[in-house]
Amino acid sequence: MFEKHPYSLLVGQYLQERSFPQSPAYLYDPIRYILSLAGKRIRPMLVLMGARLFGKENLQEVLPASCAIEYFHNFSLLHDDIMDKAPLRRGKPTVHMKWNDNVAILSGDALLVKAYEELAHSPAHKIPALLRMFNQVALEVCEGQQIDMDFESTEYVTEDEYLNMIRLKTSVLLGGALKMGAILADASDEQQQLIYDFGVNLGIAFQLQDDYLDVYGDPSNFGKQVGGDILSDKKTILRIRTQQLAVDDKREELENLLFPNQVSDEEKINRMKKLYSELAVDEYTNQLKEHFMQLAYNQLSDIDVPETDKKELFTLADMLMNRVK
Amino acid sequence: MFEKHPYSLLVGQYLQERSFPQSPAYLYDPIRYILSLAGKRIRPMLVLMGARLFGKENLQEVLPASCAIEYFHNFSLLHDDIMDKAPLRRGKPTVHMKWNDNVAILSGDALLVKAYEELAHSPAHKIPALLRMFNQVALEVCEGQQIDMDFESTEYVTEDEYLNMIRLKTSVLLGGALKMGAILADASDEQQQLIYDFGVNLGIAFQLQDDYLDVYGDPSNFGKQVGGDILSDKKTILRIRTQQLAVDDKREELENLLFPNQVSDEEKINRMKKLYSELAVDEYTNQLKEHFMQLAYNQLSDIDVPETDKKELFTLADMLMNRVK
Repeated sequence: MFEKHPYSLLVGQYLQERSFPQSPAYLYDPIRYILSLAGKRIRPMLVLMGARLFGKENLQEVLPASCAIEYFHNFSLLHDDIMDKAPLRRGKPTVHMKWNDNVAILSGDALLVKAYEELAHSPAHKIPALLRMFNQVALEVCEGQQIDMDFESTEYVTEDEYLNMIRLKTSVLLGGALKMGAILADASDEQQQLIYDFGVNLGIAFQLQDDYLDVYGDPSNFGKQVGGDILSDKKTILRIRTQQLAVDDKREELENLLFPNQVSDEEKINRMKKLYSELAVDEYTNQLKEHFMQLAYNQLSDIDVPETDKKELFTLADMLMNRVK
Repeated sequence: MFEKHPYSLLVGQYLQERSFPQSPAYLYDPIRYILSLAGKRIRPMLVLMGARLFGKENLQEVLPASCAIEYFHNFSLLHDDIMDKAPLRRGKPTVHMKWNDNVAILSGDALLVKAYEELAHSPAHKIPALLRMFNQVALEVCEGQQIDMDFESTEYVTEDEYLNMIRLKTSVLLGGALKMGAILADASDEQQQLIYDFGVNLGIAFQLQDDYLDVYGDPSNFGKQVGGDILSDKKTILRIRTQQLAVDDKREELENLLFPNQVSDEEKINRMKKLYSELAVDEYTNQLKEHFMQLAYNQLSDIDVPETDKKELFTLADMLMNRVK
C-alpha cells in the first residue's frame, strides 16, 4: 500500500546503499536477512514526513535518522521474536529459528549500535536533540515490551494499563519518528510536541484497530489467522473490556472459555465473539479507536503550517485506519 | 587494588546518584543488580584519566561519558553471560540464572540505551565525536564476542586471529575509554590516537597475562579455578601456540589430552603444563605480553604532555601488569 510512495523509495534506496561487513558472518548475515524482509517502512517514512511538514528541503540530511528508526525497529523485532518464541516474521523463519538464540541476541545488539551509528551521520548540531529523543523512545519501547510480557502472568489488566503498554511498546516510536523529522526541520518545541502526540495517538488507534481486526478482519486481507488472539488468550482491549464487564452467566461463560482445552478452536472463537457482541466490546473498541484517531487529527490540525502541507500525513493516517483502500 | 582511588570514588558516587524507575521491576531490578556487583571500575576510571592527562580540569563534564562506558561494559556482561551460559558473575548468580533469559536480554538492551542516555549528558559540542567513538567500540565489541563464539567450533585458530579477537572483545573498550576522555579534553587527533593505541595494547597485554595466570597463577590471588581454561579446552594463546608447534609425540600427547574424558582433571592440567613447558609456550606468552606492554609504554611516552602528568597512567599499567603489588 505504501511500497510505491516516493519516500518509501527514497528510504529503500538509502537502506540499499548501506553495506555491512561480510565477517563475522553470524553477526552480519542475520542483519542483512532481517532487513531484507522489508516491512512497510512506515516508521522511516514518518521521519521524512515530519521533516517535510515543517519545510525541510534537503531530505538527504534526514535519511540517516530515518534509517536509524528502521534499524531500531528491526532490532526490536529480532529480540522480541526470541522472547515471544515466534517462529515466523513476515512469513519467513525468524532469526533465532534460522540460526539460534545467541546469534539473534548479538546481531540484534549490533543492529541497535548501527542505528546509533546512522543517527551520528545527521548534521552535527542536531545530534544532541536527536539522540535525546531516540534514547527516550528506545527506553520506552523496552519498558512496553517488559510490561507486555508481565501481562502474560497478570490475571487482571486494566484498560489504562493496556493503553499505557501499547503506547510504550508501539506508539512512541511513531511519535518519535515524526518528532525527529521535526527536530531536523527546526520546528519549535511546541510544534514538535504536537507532531509527537499526533504520532502517538495514531499509533494507539492503529493498535486498537489491530486488536479489532484480529477478530473481525477479512481473512483474505488481514494476513494473520483471524481469531489468533482469542485462541492464545491474549489480553487485547476486547478481552480486557469483557473481563471488566462480564457478570453472572457471562462471567461463567468467559471463565469456561478461558479454561484450557474445553472446546474446539472454532467453537472458542464463535462463543467469544458472541460474548463480545452481547457486551458490545466490539463497538466499544471502535469508539475508543475513533477517540484516539480524533485526538490525532486534532493535533495535526493544530499544527501551524499551511493545510496543504498536512495533506500527506492526513492521507497516511486515513490509509492506516482503513478509511481509504 | 583500585577501590580507594579518588577517580574510582568519584565514579562510584556518580553511579550511586543515578536512579532507575521502580517499574517495570523485571526491567530495572536486574540493572540495579548487575551494577551493584561493582567490578574494579577500571574502564570508567580510564575516561577520567584520559581527560586529566590532557589537562581537563572540570571532571563533572567527563563523568557522563565515564558512566556510559561502565553501563556499556555491564550491558555486555549481561548478554555475554546468556550466550556463554555462565552461572556466576563476580561470585553471584548471573541475571539470566537469577531471573531468566528474556529478562537478561531486555534489561541488557535497556542498559545499553541508558549508556547512550548518559553519553547524551556530555557537553553538547562534544557529543558527535563521543558518539562516533562509542559506536565504533560498541560494534567492535560485538564483533569480538561473535569471533570468540566462532572459535568454539573452529579447529585451528591462528595467533593473529586470536590477537584480533581479544583486541576487539576486550581491548578496544580500554582504548575507547581513554580516547573519550581525550576528546573531552580537546586533545589533537594525533594525541587521541596515541592514547587509544596505548589502551588497546595495554588491554591485549592484560588478556595475555590473564591466559598465563589461568595456568600459572597463585590460586589464592587469582580468584578463578587455576587450570580452568585447560579443562574447558579454551583456545587461549597457550593452547593455540601449542597446537602450532607440537609435532610427533607432542602432537599425539596434545590430541590425547583434547580427546574427551581420557584423564582426570588434575592429570590433564599437569600433562598440559608439561607440554607447555617442553614447547616453551609459557615463556613465549610472557614475551608476547611484554611486547604489547612495551608498545603501550612507548605510546604513552610519545604523548606530548609533561612526564609528571603521565605518572598516574604508568602506575595503573604497572598495577594491572602485576609489576607492583
